[in-house]
Formats: sequence, structure tokens, C-alpha cells
Amino acid sequence: MPAIDFKIIKKDRGCAARSGSLTTPHGTIDTPVFMPVGTQATVKAMTPEEMREIRAQIILANTYHLYIRPGHELVARLGGLHEFMHWDGPILTDSGGFQVFSLGELRKISEEGVRFQSHLDGSSHFISPERAIAIQEALGGDIIMCFDECPPYPAEYDYVRRSAELTGRWARRCKEAKRRDDQALFGIVQGGMYRDLRERSAQELCALEFDGYALGGLSVGEEKRLMYEVMEYCAPLLPEDKPRYVMGIGAPEDLIEGINSGVDMFDCVMPTRNARNGMLFTTTGRINIKNAGYAEDRSPIDEECACYVCKNYSRAYLRHLYRAGEILASRLNTWHNLHYYLSLMTGARKAIAEDRFTQFRREFYAKKQSLGDED
Amino acid sequence: MPAIDFKIIKKDRGCAARSGSLTTPHGTIDTPVFMPVGTQATVKAMTPEEMREIRAQIILANTYHLYIRPGHELVARLGGLHEFMHWDGPILTDSGGFQVFSLGELRKISEEGVRFQSHLDGSSHFISPERAIAIQEALGGDIIMCFDECPPYPAEYDYVRRSAELTGRWARRCKEAKRRDDQALFGIVQGGMYRDLRERSAQELCALEFDGYALGGLSVGEEKRLMYEVMEYCAPLLPEDKPRYVMGIGAPEDLIEGINSGVDMFDCVMPTRNARNGMLFTTTGRINIKNAGYAEDRSPIDEECACYVCKNYSRAYLRHLYRAGEILASRLNTWHNLHYYLSLMTGARKAIAEDRFTQFRREFYAKKQSLGDED
Repeated sequence: MPAIDFKIIKKDRGCAARSGSLTTPHGTIDTPVFMPVGTQATVKAMTPEEMREIRAQIILANTYHLYIRPGHELVARLGGLHEFMHWDGPILTDSGGFQVFSLGELRKISEEGVRFQSHLDGSSHFISPERAIAIQEALGGDIIMCFDECPPYPAEYDYVRRSAELTGRWARRCKEAKRRDDQALFGIVQGGMYRDLRERSAQELCALEFDGYALGGLSVGEEKRLMYEVMEYCAPLLPEDKPRYVMGIGAPEDLIEGINSGVDMFDCVMPTRNARNGMLFTTTGRINIKNAGYAEDRSPIDEECACYVCKNYSRAYLRHLYRAGEILASRLNTWHNLHYYLSLMTGARKAIAEDRFTQFRREFYAKKQSLGDED
Repeated sequence: MPAIDFKIIKKDRGCAARSGSLTTPHGTIDTPVFMPVGTQATVKAMTPEEMREIRAQIILANTYHLYIRPGHELVARLGGLHEFMHWDGPILTDSGGFQVFSLGELRKISEEGVRFQSHLDGSSHFISPERAIAIQEALGGDIIMCFDECPPYPAEYDYVRRSAELTGRWARRCKEAKRRDDQALFGIVQGGMYRDLRERSAQELCALEFDGYALGGLSVGEEKRLMYEVMEYCAPLLPEDKPRYVMGIGAPEDLIEGINSGVDMFDCVMPTRNARNGMLFTTTGRINIKNAGYAEDRSPIDEECACYVCKNYSRAYLRHLYRAGEILASRLNTWHNLHYYLSLMTGARKAIAEDRFTQFRREFYAKKQSLGDED
């Protein structure tokens, strides 16, 4: 029996958007879903109870970071990630591939795997597809990812081709290495911005029959138009009855475009990281709470928002906290931004259920433009 | 009608400890009470709801810091501190005296007041007793403090004498400057470690008839033995029917000694600041969560503690969060430490009610010694 069960609940009649239900060993997720990032076994500045309160359904944890510190074996001895971090909902772990490839000079790729140096202490490590699976099995997430190579952008056709082929061979090794049957394994389609390479990669991955499929190698510096194009032609290449996940994106509009193309899952550090830098999402555009114009502004971040922060705090106070470097600034800003993302997903699911995602998408852009984004 | 009402509920038969009830415009406080410090209009890392959950009864805010940023007039225009920071319970503001005197080279004292430079931008400011009251009236705390001079330790007898006399004259000016009748004003007894100067200062202050009395100038580098001695001989110099407050102390044992001498109110950054440095209070002594010995420790910080942190997280996870520099480390450590302090006060009040504070104090030390404090 597979570790997860995915059911399409509704397909929007006006576009490729779809809503579904993804059952994992730690609970059922409504899709499309945004997965907040808990890099080091904590969604920065939030408790698990707060994540529940804002209706987070699944959390993503970073294999690379947890492998480096505190170490996957330690996490396993302490009962696995769920118990370690006091989160009993679903968890997805990435494979560590993206972080390892981001190390640049500090890593060396071979057929066997990747040798790299820890960003913390320079110590030398080696991760192969087999090891990436073993690490993720020790961490114990509900969904684990194949170890892939994520090429940079821009990159030559030949480089991307060889890279996607390597990712394909590694995907097969990942599948063979997998031991636990209470975890789902997703394959990752690569191929950069080259349509034929994406098609070939998708075909290869699909032949291996994974529990779900991701698009990797997006949001690596390419123009948004290109990213949207890749999502649009890639989504239909993936099996309709399996969850589709675009890794590492994105801005709210990127999620809207992904959903419009038939994508079910997203993750991104944007809402949490930007929060800590004072950038807040609102239904009418982004604001920067640092701006002097908010010094005496008694209104909430977003008049339309029903979150704890918007119910209880003024922009003036949030600006003060931010300028004073207070931890509460990061907490409240993160709370609001995650609530914004999760509410956007709730709205999208509702719109799909009512066959009006196209209208929802149009309204999203119309509203957003009414203010425009601040620096 | 005075802004606050203080009633002694019980005097312990075995020592000078007493429990009482202090009614302010924003609620009633059970004494002895520990006041968590919310320097910049937030108790670092905590929300007001969490402060309620751990049963904080009153919060202290720092006049100097709020005067410098965001400015008392801005806070007043935004409805005062309670509304600004979303805390509808009692607030005490200090006078700014202690912070100003801590500026060292950056300040110059005269009969009229103190000229000083902002620690943020070097801008020049002048605070007189009248101005300290005006600033605190703008902030809008329930209890405000006289502007005093806090001499360093050690200091020559003559310096401390002149300083205490100045504090006395400033106290009179503060009382005369006060306009709002919904705020209580406390006088501050100075006199360093010189008993006759403390006695004279107490006499002078009492003659001015304040709503409560504080001992200032303690925990400035003197030995604990000396601090305890000053509390012991000063408390009886103050009116029995008014609240007694020792400013800026201290460690748990300092609170126990203060209560034993008949003190009702305390404040200190120790539980919050130490939390952010990984130092945690337990019933059997202090631990440092950084220590390698906790790497795989599945037990809570304190087996006897019933707080949210001890119910849900292991020492191993807290150590991981601390090492990873996660905001959640500061949050959970602060939560536990404040809970420890507030529970200690609850225990003290209960012991006083049952005439067994002496026993409570003895047990506190016996338990604490069983482990000893870690570095």
C-alpha cells in the first residue's frame, strides 16, 4: 500500500486548476497547498501551535541543514522529526540537493554523488542518492524527495541535458534505495528552461512510477514569464492522478500561476524571510513596515485580514518593533505573512470548487495593482 | 482618590514576609509580585497573550528607551502604552534615571536635571524631574516613578550623601509636577550601602507621602550579602501600608530574600536576558542549554515544571534551536524562565498565606543546592 493517497476532488472548468486531498501518515492535506519552510526543524519564529492556528497543513524541513546540524542520526534517536520538533502534522523533507548545489565552490559532482564542505565548519561530506534517502528515512518525513542536480540559470543546453540525465539515473537509485514504506517518494523533473529536456526528464521520471512529481530548477534567476511557461507546459506532462509540486516558489502571483497550470504543492521561504526583513504581504500589494509613513499609522497591516496580528496591532507598533530590532517584530510579521499565503490558498481552493478560479486570479491581480508594491 | 489601592492580606508569623493586593486602573495584582521587563514596549520574545498565560500580572516598561524611540509623544498620540503594545494589564514605567546614569560619559548631572546623549544617535537631551513625570504621563503607565540619581558602587560617603539629597529634592519636584490622577507615583530611596543615608533618605521620601516606595541603587555591583542587608534594614523604614519595591533585582534567591524582608515588588531583566543566552532556571539550579551533555537529553528543562515548554520540548531540541540561532530558542527559553519566576512568586504567596514562608525559603535553597548552578 502506498504511503500517501491522492484524490482529485474538483477540476476547475475554466482552466487547468484542480483541488484535491492528499492523505499522509500524519494527516490529510487539502490541495493546492503552500508548505511553510521549517529549515532547521522549526518554522522560523513560530510554534507548531501557531502553525495550526493559521491552518498550516504541512511543513517542509531541509535535509541538508538537519544533516549538518543536529545530524539525522541524532534526530532518529530522538524519535524522528515529528517528535523532535513537536509537530504531529505532515512533513516533507527535500533531498538536500538544492542546498548542496548552492554551495558552489564548496562541492564537486560525480556520477556517484556530491562531495561538499559544510557551510558551518568546512568539514567534508559525501551525499549520494542512496545516502540522501537514508538521511531522509532517518529524519522520518511523510514525503521524501529524490536527490537531484539543480543546474544554474542560465546554463548551456549540453550541460543541462547531461545534468537532467544524471538526475534521472539518480532518481532510479533513490527509488531502489528506499526502505521505509510509511514514506512517499517524489521524483524531480529537471531540464532547465529547455522544453525538450523537460519533456524527456518528465517521461523518464514517470516511467519510474513515483508517488508524486516535482518540478525542480525553477526560481533560480529566470524571468517570471519563463518560469510560468515551464510550469504551464510541464504540468500536463505529469500523471493527472499524482500530486504535482513546484519546488521553491514563490511570490503570491507565482502560486496563482502555478495553480492555474494545474500544480498542487508549493514551498518557499519568501513569506517567512521577507517578514523578518519587514516586508509584508497585503491584498493590495506589498508594504515595507520600515517606511516612515507608518510611524503613526493606527491601521492594521491589511484591513481585509483576519489574522491575530491584524486584529491586535497597528502598523505604527509593528514599525516600532522592527526598528527596535525586537524578536516580536519577526514573530508578528511572520505570522501575518504566512497567514496571507495560507489564506490565499484557501481562497484558491474555494474558487476551484466553484469553477471560478479564472475570476479569482483576475481579481487577485486587479486588487494587487490598486496599490502596487513598495520597495 | 489615589490611583492605586494597596491592602495587606497576610503577614507571615515567622518573618517579615507579607502578601497583599494592589489595585491599579488596569487590574489587581497579588503581591509579592515579579514584574517582567518590557523595555521597548514588548517583553522580549513574548506576546501579551503569552504573558497572560504564564500569569504575568504587571509589566515594566523603560521610560528612557521609549522616550528615545519611538518617543513618548508618539505613544501618547497612539493612545498610550497599553493600546500601543496591546497589553491591557497594569504597567509600571521607571523614571529613566537608572538608564540615564548608566550612560556614564554621555551624561552631565546638575541641580536642574541631567543632560545626556542618546545611545542611538548621539543627539542631546535634557531630563529634569518635571520632564520625567511629563514623559511618564504621556506613556500612561499605572505606576510611575520619581526621577532619581543612582550612584555607582563603590562610591564615597560624601558623594552618596549629596546624591541622595539631590534625589530627595527631585522627588519633591516630581510630586509637584504630577498632573494625572489615574497614575500612582512611587518615591525612590537612595543612600547606597550607607545605613544612615538610607535612613535619612527614607525619612525624607516618606514625609512627601508617595503612593508607594522603592529602594533604588541596589544590584549595582555590591556583594549579595550587602544587598540583602540593605533590604533588611530598609524595608521596615517604609510605611507598612504602602507597596515596597526593590528596583532591578534579581536572581531567584534575591527575590526570596527581598520577600523575607517584607518587600512586595521586584523587576529584573535576568529571566529574559539569560534566556536569550541559553541560561535556564530550574528548581534544582541553573542549567546552560548550550552544554553538550544535553545533545540527546529527551527530558524537559525541569521535570517539576508545568509550563508549555516543559510539557512539549526536550532539552535536546532546545539545545539544537539555541545552537542554530533560531528565534524559537529565545521564545521558548524566555517563556520557561518567566514561568519559573512567576511560579516562584505564586509559591511564595501561598507560603505566606499559610505562615510557612521560612520553610519555603529553606526548601528553595535545599533544592537549588542539590544540583548547583552550571556556568
